[in-house]
Amino acid sequence: MEMKAYLSELGRAVDSYLARCLHDSNVPPMLLEAMEYSLLAGGKRLRPALCLVWAEMFGARRDDILPAAAALECVHTYSLIHDDLPAMDNDDLRRGKPSSHKQFGEALAILAGDGLLTEAFGLLLSTKAPAEQVLQAGQRLALAAGVSGMVGGQTLDMQWTGQGQITLDDVSRMQDLKTGAMLQASCECGVILAGGTKADVQRASNYGIHIGRAFQIADDILDVTGDAKTMGKPAGSDEDKGKITYPSLIGVGPSREQAERFRDLAVQALEGLAGPQADFLRELAAYVVTRAS
Amino acid sequence: MEMKAYLSELGRAVDSYLARCLHDSNVPPMLLEAMEYSLLAGGKRLRPALCLVWAEMFGARRDDILPAAAALECVHTYSLIHDDLPAMDNDDLRRGKPSSHKQFGEALAILAGDGLLTEAFGLLLSTKAPAEQVLQAGQRLALAAGVSGMVGGQTLDMQWTGQGQITLDDVSRMQDLKTGAMLQASCECGVILAGGTKADVQRASNYGIHIGRAFQIADDILDVTGDAKTMGKPAGSDEDKGKITYPSLIGVGPSREQAERFRDLAVQALEGLAGPQADFLRELAAYVVTRAS
Repeated sequence: MEMKAYLSELGRAVDSYLARCLHDSNVPPMLLEAMEYSLLAGGKRLRPALCLVWAEMFGARRDDILPAAAALECVHTYSLIHDDLPAMDNDDLRRGKPSSHKQFGEALAILAGDGLLTEAFGLLLSTKAPAEQVLQAGQRLALAAGVSGMVGGQTLDMQWTGQGQITLDDVSRMQDLKTGAMLQASCECGVILAGGTKADVQRASNYGIHIGRAFQIADDILDVTGDAKTMGKPAGSDEDKGKITYPSLIGVGPSREQAERFRDLAVQALEGLAGPQADFLRELAAYVVTRAS
Repeated sequence: MEMKAYLSELGRAVDSYLARCLHDSNVPPMLLEAMEYSLLAGGKRLRPALCLVWAEMFGARRDDILPAAAALECVHTYSLIHDDLPAMDNDDLRRGKPSSHKQFGEALAILAGDGLLTEAFGLLLSTKAPAEQVLQAGQRLALAAGVSGMVGGQTLDMQWTGQGQITLDDVSRMQDLKTGAMLQASCECGVILAGGTKADVQRASNYGIHIGRAFQIADDILDVTGDAKTMGKPAGSDEDKGKITYPSLIGVGPSREQAERFRDLAVQALEGLAGPQADFLRELAAYVVTRAS
């Protein structure tokens, strides 16, 4: 199957699961509406797709892994809602729609984010796999999403925005925490839940961290060169906010070379793996560097 | 041992664990400082104590359960930080000190809360107990802290504040979600992690929900009658904010009777249980109704 068709198929499976996974008679309707507004707003579903593909490569059934895949998207969505808040990046638009606090007010946006993060763990822990594996995946998610991962990265991003003495190494470390850790954990959780060996988990880890770097640099290049309509957000917003990125430090051309280098390292991590899942992961690595939105 | 001495001993064990559990070389120092500012600000450590005592009653070793107990306190602390935010309850003081956003700014307060919630799951999932039991405790925590529990309760509280047509049943339901669910889960997690039977978990559940109700009503009475200095926050703040509570709906005297009724139901759930832990839980139920802060 071609990569984009496979990605769409996975996206549909994830979307259909996401559309029902938060429904419970005890959830206040307004809160459910706010969570689903952001969760079901589209998006590439990259994290769930990575988790599912790595899991399928090691023999797991898609339906068994969907709760974990959905959990990864819930964590990603919560992080977008909180990052958009006025006290953080103060973004009014997300995926072409008003951001959560613009639509529902700040209080509900904070609560929707808190809710999605909490439900993520509930979902992941309900994954159909041996308890030891589910536990290990849950620990992996907590580490990647937490203060030594995504939350830590967002803190550094806030702290460093507008500062003058940030190096390329600093930016790389910050992006590894903010974006890379969750992409890496998405790959690892797939293998862990499928019962792969430690060596398999390490492969997934190597692939994930490098595709994460390629992805983030490509994202920062797009912010400079991209088309607002295709992206669903204004171009040049990083520069307006004083964000330090690869392109702001070394320019677009050298940044693209770095993204391609990380893409190659991601592909290297797949050495010796064959079949439709490995093909997908190779094509995906190329795609994240060349995509237009 | 007398109840208060037992509670202090548990509090010291929890405090000493909390003071080291977030340290990791990858955590940005400012974020760690903000999390520990709120986490180590004292407090009764009621949730960890409930978890530890129920676990010890069913034969677990305290040291094995401390990560889970700490997790419960992390969730509680995160909820206080986010509830205090300007968009939510807009409280400048917490436990006699500036609230997190007053001390560190809103962005870091949001991130400290997000971090504590995420680390809570990491901690709980590292508890030394059979994987199946840890998994079940993790699911229990997610349910109690999430949108059918604490986050849902806070949403209703925000929605209903200043509204006229809220009944006593509404208030009771909201408080069960906002406060009761986590106290209940604290008791249940102790029994689950100790390997108790389903009937034992049900006892803990009954005790927890009723002590939660007694606790919350007593808290609302204190807000009306209490001394600002003893409480570390201004008295009468619920009324100023238009919060609907037991005392605001039925007055202080009848509210106290309700609190005592729930205390009696909590004690009933302990029927047939003997030993220092059961004695502690009985005395604790009496204490939450009569305490001054």
